[in-house]
Amino acid sequence: MKTVDLALLGFGNVGRAFARLLLEKYEELQRDHGFKPRIVGIATGRHGVCINPQGIKLEELVEAIDSSERLDLNRFNTQTPVIDSYDFIQQVPAQVLCETTPVNPQSGLPALDFLRAGAKRGLHLITANKGPVVFGFRELTELTRQKGKLFRFESAVMDGAPIFSLFRHSLAGAQIRGFYGILNSCTNLLLERMREGESLEQAIAYGASIGITETDPSNDVDGWDAAIKVAALSNVLMGQNLTPKDVNPIGIRGITPQMIQEAEAQGKRWKLLCRGGWENGKFVCSVAPGMVSADSPLYTVDGTSSFVSFELDVLPGLGVLESDPSPKTTAFGLLSDLIDIVRTEQA
Amino acid sequence: MKTVDLALLGFGNVGRAFARLLLEKYEELQRDHGFKPRIVGIATGRHGVCINPQGIKLEELVEAIDSSERLDLNRFNTQTPVIDSYDFIQQVPAQVLCETTPVNPQSGLPALDFLRAGAKRGLHLITANKGPVVFGFRELTELTRQKGKLFRFESAVMDGAPIFSLFRHSLAGAQIRGFYGILNSCTNLLLERMREGESLEQAIAYGASIGITETDPSNDVDGWDAAIKVAALSNVLMGQNLTPKDVNPIGIRGITPQMIQEAEAQGKRWKLLCRGGWENGKFVCSVAPGMVSADSPLYTVDGTSSFVSFELDVLPGLGVLESDPSPKTTAFGLLSDLIDIVRTEQA
Repeated sequence: MKTVDLALLGFGNVGRAFARLLLEKYEELQRDHGFKPRIVGIATGRHGVCINPQGIKLEELVEAIDSSERLDLNRFNTQTPVIDSYDFIQQVPAQVLCETTPVNPQSGLPALDFLRAGAKRGLHLITANKGPVVFGFRELTELTRQKGKLFRFESAVMDGAPIFSLFRHSLAGAQIRGFYGILNSCTNLLLERMREGESLEQAIAYGASIGITETDPSNDVDGWDAAIKVAALSNVLMGQNLTPKDVNPIGIRGITPQMIQEAEAQGKRWKLLCRGGWENGKFVCSVAPGMVSADSPLYTVDGTSSFVSFELDVLPGLGVLESDPSPKTTAFGLLSDLIDIVRTEQA
Repeated sequence: MKTVDLALLGFGNVGRAFARLLLEKYEELQRDHGFKPRIVGIATGRHGVCINPQGIKLEELVEAIDSSERLDLNRFNTQTPVIDSYDFIQQVPAQVLCETTPVNPQSGLPALDFLRAGAKRGLHLITANKGPVVFGFRELTELTRQKGKLFRFESAVMDGAPIFSLFRHSLAGAQIRGFYGILNSCTNLLLERMREGESLEQAIAYGASIGITETDPSNDVDGWDAAIKVAALSNVLMGQNLTPKDVNPIGIRGITPQMIQEAEAQGKRWKLLCRGGWENGKFVCSVAPGMVSADSPLYTVDGTSSFVSFELDVLPGLGVLESDPSPKTTAFGLLSDLIDIVRTEQA
């Protein structure tokens, strides 16, 4: 049985959910996919660093996550402690680097630099991070290709719902002309709360209370999270080279409760709409609030669900709806990337 | 450049759309996928049979389809005429048998027998036909496997929208627990017309006028088309061994204009709902009319669009929406199967 050695860079909600999922699917991966995943190192900013060439026991790792004590990964270390994430990337005896550090929508750094270092060392790369996808898709694809390795990032847009792998496999023979959808679940929830009578501030406070909005909600509310996703889809699927600034998003601050009530009276709903595609030979994209009526598939996309519809040369609309995702869903995106890497290597 | 030789069995709307698509994508297939498709034989019930080991010129074939004269395929023949479809399957010098003959929801015959013969001859199999998928999925998978070949059928459910390939690739690491959706576009259109005030009979007459309903609409109206799709999804994705009779469908004849108006007054819509999945350890499935409200993704599925949502262990709901398909969309399903076969062979 083949063993695949993983190095995890970042170990927040997504990294932890990934460790849990590897434990849950440990038998299934051997039975259905012919490999044993093994975590041989984890580097974090706040919980320590560990390298263990024999593999960290998944049960013990998950137990450490679940215990109420402060997580300290150093206890799993069997090597001389490494100094920082770059040392970790150089030293960890892994085949695959799995990156889940926080998103930087301005530059993709430092995640992009971590992945560059991993690629140059000859590791396969998996990331759940939109930053390096937007700012480094071509470069990281080329760097990994030079070493005969792969760069995968299914979780970067719509968590583990298949988007990039869909075009890599099922839609390999189709040409994409454009897309539209709802890609930011936070603003989608806020607009739903406002429809139920709350002000934007009340909705943000509610979002914060359930862990959906951050202390500074502007990344979501002003459209930047949606813009980085539009840039990621445009760059990867449609050959563009956009930054979130190029998308020039308009957020939902201008949407008043009165506007929402007026829309409701017309049987319509406000949504933060994302678009990208060719129009008259020119690539155009946008993130902006818009009203949708009950004949649009966007009308029923509520809560933290998201949706994207692709216009293809062979089909006017192919939509993907992700309903009620959890960190496990994002972790599944990482796992599907890992399976894709293992399959491609075997082929 | 590798050449892939195709034999087409059946040459109605879908087969013809496939020929057009091969012509349209001829350069693209060479550039992006490294092969030249070549049609070396076509067998039909009413338009003749041809075998041409050098390949039928796609331009001439499409011209023959487009010309208003009665299509006669015998003119492309360069071999002693074959007697019937079984002779054709034995003689045609193809690597891939592509079957698009009419569906038989009772037994899958004779398509199933054609595909059995192709498998035994060592051909890869592609079908757009639900019948042999429901009645022969395991057998045809095993027969082709014995010869190192593949059985593919993406177009059998929801035309070219990726369903089966989605589970083969992107969702390979996920476990499916169930599905629900709207799988019969004909009844979906009829219910929409009835919502606009028509009787079922008027709606059927309209459907017939635009070529959506058949002379005998019972296959759609009584739920059999939906039932065969439910059986196909259940058998292929969830290990069941169901026939359409096992699904025991309830069609839409019991839905009156008054019921539709009453639903509308409550903000709801009648749809022909399809379901399958495990409940309390037992596999259950159904096709029956049901009311959906404006918070369901089914609410906005109108016209000839269709939708399916899968419940997965890693995601409560992953929906696939196919908006406004055409015969080209079904042809794309065949093409995506062909690309998958070529890629798997090369790997």
